Amino acid sequence: MQRLGLRTVVRVPTTAYFGPKGTFTEQAARALAPGADFLPMPTIPEAVGAVRSGLAELACVPIENSVEGAVSAAMDTLAADAPPVVALAEYLLPIRFSILVRPGLKAADVRSIASHPHALAQVERWIQDTMPDAARRPASSTAGAAVGVQSGEFDAAVTAPVAASHYSLDVLATDVADERDAITRFLLLARPERLPEATGADRTSVIVVLSHQPGELAAVLNEFASRGINLTRIESRPLRNRFGEYRFYLDFDGHISEPRVADALGALRRRSQRVLFLGSYPKAEGNATEVTAPHRAADYELSGTWVAALLRGEQP
Amino acid sequence: MQRLGLRTVVRVPTTAYFGPKGTFTEQAARALAPGADFLPMPTIPEAVGAVRSGLAELACVPIENSVEGAVSAAMDTLAADAPPVVALAEYLLPIRFSILVRPGLKAADVRSIASHPHALAQVERWIQDTMPDAARRPASSTAGAAVGVQSGEFDAAVTAPVAASHYSLDVLATDVADERDAITRFLLLARPERLPEATGADRTSVIVVLSHQPGELAAVLNEFASRGINLTRIESRPLRNRFGEYRFYLDFDGHISEPRVADALGALRRRSQRVLFLGSYPKAEGNATEVTAPHRAADYELSGTWVAALLRGEQP
Repeated sequence: MQRLGLRTVVRVPTTAYFGPKGTFTEQAARALAPGADFLPMPTIPEAVGAVRSGLAELACVPIENSVEGAVSAAMDTLAADAPPVVALAEYLLPIRFSILVRPGLKAADVRSIASHPHALAQVERWIQDTMPDAARRPASSTAGAAVGVQSGEFDAAVTAPVAASHYSLDVLATDVADERDAITRFLLLARPERLPEATGADRTSVIVVLSHQPGELAAVLNEFASRGINLTRIESRPLRNRFGEYRFYLDFDGHISEPRVADALGALRRRSQRVLFLGSYPKAEGNATEVTAPHRAADYELSGTWVAALLRGEQP
Repeated sequence: MQRLGLRTVVRVPTTAYFGPKGTFTEQAARALAPGADFLPMPTIPEAVGAVRSGLAELACVPIENSVEGAVSAAMDTLAADAPPVVALAEYLLPIRFSILVRPGLKAADVRSIASHPHALAQVERWIQDTMPDAARRPASSTAGAAVGVQSGEFDAAVTAPVAASHYSLDVLATDVADERDAITRFLLLARPERLPEATGADRTSVIVVLSHQPGELAAVLNEFASRGINLTRIESRPLRNRFGEYRFYLDFDGHISEPRVADALGALRRRSQRVLFLGSYPKAEGNATEVTAPHRAADYELSGTWVAALLRGEQP
């Protein structure tokens, strides 16, 4: 979509997301790319594929602890032998559900309550307390349950809060969650044309392929430790087609434009058969990363100048 | 159940599993505990809880890449502040589906096909090729879809192969999978009364709690690397209630009865606020772990004897 003004042409980016409409992923996509055109895709690989093919500029997918989709699919898609994508931003969404019902319906009148099986499991205690006799009915997604309520198939749906804006249904309850600290993490992905600038509170994500030898991973992690870089997530995935190789997904504090991070990434590249850079982007938590001596940019500048002088035959 | 023989009383163990009946987890439970009494439980925490409370002797749960349940639930349950459980065995199950229909129904007559949303997603290409016009219908589990076919709610169900033995339905197709190498890993859990003996092809699992400091994880992994121990899986989970602490789930080659493994576990315990031992058990792959100098039991015996002699004032 293009909006034509007198002096400017503002292009609204198309943002693909793992759909359907009305799910937690839509909610994350709207928070990460406000004002975009949104394009729900049926699977995580298809949402990422929309950016790779140019169908969309941006894609929003869950990367950790999703209610509705297998997150291993996101990691496998990012690692696929396909045009690269990088994260521009991340979003942490507390998983609290809304309960939607047909207009006017009371809790006592609910005979059936529907949602994605994982969402139903996450509000089971609330259902027990509020409508113990309601039949639990599976839906293909939280939003699919809302569609079913609208069509009269079910009385109530367990949904993402954003679903309330798409359907003419009453909100019977909000902020429903048996487990209060369930959080899903989402990434906003784009083609690697330009990277977000460093903010001082950044995270970098990579996938590293290592051979399956004792000490290989420890050696890689030492490259981070020796540069004072804090890892915030690590996860291994076996590569089944190539026996003896493992893929590691790593998140760590810092931005590739910082010398200590660029230096660590270079060391990774020397150690690994394959390193996939998945972007440097602002941390959702927003807390600044403290960088102390000898890991600051100034320390690297000093050491670089010193070595260069030695190479010129000087002894500074 | 007790079977009374002339000379022996054989007690058949009760094996709880993440149900319902007819799922991939039941299939794994039957492979891991043949001849047991089986007890389906509605959630992963309840299946593990059955062993903790003594309701069952054994429990079978998915631990990696499950079709039907969030595997993070298994990790969180194992890490919970509750009576300990350990793994006695693991099982790798290739995820291939069967398609069940009402007796006599042909593929061309299928108007609706049901399963857990994740299972439907994993056979979408097969449905496109075989019955493109069939309505995809969500069920709470693969087995729930088979129940729906039996009751006339759906025409076809995408299920685990074991479901065919529970329902009077025809098997329209078997070995159906869009992605050929999807595998789910299951653990058989028990109270830690006795450990399986070392076989030479063993795996050990632990959960380690570390503070969130650069280099902490690298230091832990060095304890394995310096002892020639190969890590086969690593996964981090943040502890949201205690800021700055992370929990790591680690699998590695070897058995706690090997000196190098016992030595590494001791080093972990000195480094970590909390180490949960989840068992040493035979590897599903069955390939023997090669242990070379200086990491063999004989090397530890030699070094132990040598240090003991020094302590006695001898110089051997």
